[in-house]
Amino acid sequence: MIITLLTDFGLSDPYVGIMKGVMLSICPEACVVDISHSISPQYIDMASFILIKAIPYFPKGTIHCVVVDPGVGSDRKTLIVQADGHFFVAPDNGVLKRIFHGSSNSRVFHAVRPEYCLKKVSQTFHGRDIFAPAAAHLANGVDPEQIAVPCNQYIRGDIREPVLQKEQIIGEVIYFDRFGNAITNISECMLKNRNNIQIVAGDQIINGLVSAYSQAKTGEPLAIIGSFENLEIAVREGSARAEIPLKERDKIKILF
Amino acid sequence: MIITLLTDFGLSDPYVGIMKGVMLSICPEACVVDISHSISPQYIDMASFILIKAIPYFPKGTIHCVVVDPGVGSDRKTLIVQADGHFFVAPDNGVLKRIFHGSSNSRVFHAVRPEYCLKKVSQTFHGRDIFAPAAAHLANGVDPEQIAVPCNQYIRGDIREPVLQKEQIIGEVIYFDRFGNAITNISECMLKNRNNIQIVAGDQIINGLVSAYSQAKTGEPLAIIGSFENLEIAVREGSARAEIPLKERDKIKILF
Amino acid sequence: MIITLLTDFGLSDPYVGIMKGVMLSICPEACVVDISHSISPQYIDMASFILIKAIPYFPKGTIHCVVVDPGVGSDRKTLIVQADGHFFVAPDNGVLKRIFHGSSNSRVFHAVRPEYCLKKVSQTFHGRDIFAPAAAHLANGVDPEQIAVPCNQYIRGDIREPVLQKEQIIGEVIYFDRFGNAITNISECMLKNRNNIQIVAGDQIINGLVSAYSQAKTGEPLAIIGSFENLEIAVREGSARAEIPLKERDKIKILF
Repeated sequence: MIITLLTDFGLSDPYVGIMKGVMLSICPEACVVDISHSISPQYIDMASFILIKAIPYFPKGTIHCVVVDPGVGSDRKTLIVQADGHFFVAPDNGVLKRIFHGSSNSRVFHAVRPEYCLKKVSQTFHGRDIFAPAAAHLANGVDPEQIAVPCNQYIRGDIREPVLQKEQIIGEVIYFDRFGNAITNISECMLKNRNNIQIVAGDQIINGLVSAYSQAKTGEPLAIIGSFENLEIAVREGSARAEIPLKERDKIKILF
Repeated sequence: MIITLLTDFGLSDPYVGIMKGVMLSICPEACVVDISHSISPQYIDMASFILIKAIPYFPKGTIHCVVVDPGVGSDRKTLIVQADGHFFVAPDNGVLKRIFHGSSNSRVFHAVRPEYCLKKVSQTFHGRDIFAPAAAHLANGVDPEQIAVPCNQYIRGDIREPVLQKEQIIGEVIYFDRFGNAITNISECMLKNRNNIQIVAGDQIINGLVSAYSQAKTGEPLAIIGSFENLEIAVREGSARAEIPLKERDKIKILF
Repeated sequence: MIITLLTDFGLSDPYVGIMKGVMLSICPEACVVDISHSISPQYIDMASFILIKAIPYFPKGTIHCVVVDPGVGSDRKTLIVQADGHFFVAPDNGVLKRIFHGSSNSRVFHAVRPEYCLKKVSQTFHGRDIFAPAAAHLANGVDPEQIAVPCNQYIRGDIREPVLQKEQIIGEVIYFDRFGNAITNISECMLKNRNNIQIVAGDQIINGLVSAYSQAKTGEPLAIIGSFENLEIAVREGSARAEIPLKERDKIKILF
């Protein structure tokens, strides 16, 4: 059984390894896969976006354990969610918003029962003490209803979708990947059948999309439908982050 | 069988992946878990601390392979240790000191026999040539006594424990985690039943402990018993490392 | 079955985790091992060097999936190669050059059949859509000939070997590892039976080799046969990268 991890812990500390120890102590056959541990601290929207984009590449039955949790130790709930054949263990802070918006048949639980947590639960590391054991019990085939309590009140969260106007679409940068590409919230399907578009990104105006990085000249800005099927702003063999005045949440305009 | 890895190799080089290749060649069923590869180069005390804090979250029988080894290629010994149901493969340089101090029934071996090493042993990478194969043979169930030779003389090492005085405790910062929290060597139990304490950290005086990060105001320094059950100095939604003049091994005072 | 990954993706983005999801969806028993994801973007020679040095530590039958792919989306081929009992899935851009030069019996295939790719193949992420599924089908025991088409025309690539002259060898720095050691292309066997050599690296002249880091004085530059069995320039408890004016591809001279 696969358990994925998506956190803002980084990899330098032992926190991720310790969560794996907890999981493997409870479910020795679990196969734990790191999606990313480099979510910008507490950047819930980025975590939510990466999660929804990663899910389709994992088999049904996968358990996704998300720990981006600025409210740890407060009274925010811990959620266990079953949606479209996948399981999620996450704080109730909106990080699952794209799951809730995309699924019509989700089951939601909260308040993990003490017998499915570690014996001692700290105020500072629910990832280790609650989320990891709950995920491992799910991997052992325990029903979520046995682990926690059905829940009707939880944060569904807002998704800032791009705005479609008569002559333009206004979207925004969600984050930059390692290559410095700006990943936007403008999806491929919003651009279908649009010809002769111009993309305004920072101080750059880009004419039309390319279909491969190699179609742009070296050092030139380009717009492309990236591997997440969203619009990305890149610089061929360079970095949009470094070379275009653009930052997270900045507006991107598509002019028809 | 679980083998953990704790090194100062970082993740950019192929050294960790190569050690895993060696382990899986000898024990294909091994499940190798990274605790951390970001120990500050040759910072033995930090490795020792992280190891002792991680162990309780792994099941009995786990083999912990520690490669923080400034003396590689010198005549320092390689140790195989069995203590409290866990196994350790590590250089004889004090990195296991907290294991030795905490266990009353450890068995210690050294001088891994050539048939349990790689055929060619380099002077520069014992992690690959000696530690990884020894750990994998342990994972295959081979007794440490068969792999190496009983050993009475090894470095037990000193642990700089906090000093308890009449009106104060003087401890120190061990290291900073990814969030910039200063992890200290002052454990929760030293502070039990102490009320109205003040914590002196760098140029800050902090009044009392909070029990969750969310109890402090944004940007404010705070003291908390962290997930290692030790005192940590943090800044709510900030970084103690960046915002308080504090560095590794600096003194932290608790005034009663 | 082991699948290794060698990419320039870094670990902050979800790209590596998504490739693992694809692999495990097709071959749930696969054991995926990261060799490195920190190849300097598009530095094919570095990837090729690290690959050839890592292979001997993995068992026969291992599938090595290499994604250093500046030409993704262009018409460069995808190769599947079987050589000396190992399998490789990689772009046809020279990254396998050291495999081809070192093996006399390689079988080479290209043009992965659509039924062995993901249903939708993007122009930007062949690692996910073609390489990962092909590697997973190989891990399931499917013959490369079934997955792709035999291929005679592919890039064998040039290896810049050191130049041996009457009184000197001229090699070069391939890359720096995490410790700041300069890894060169000068192999141990080129230096066999050479006594009284001098190594010229940047502005330093180093007399002879040491056989362990600990033989040099702290802060002193040294030359050593490193764990790849190649000449490395290091500084004891320091960084050759930081302390010697040397960069990737700079010449290193050995004077007899």
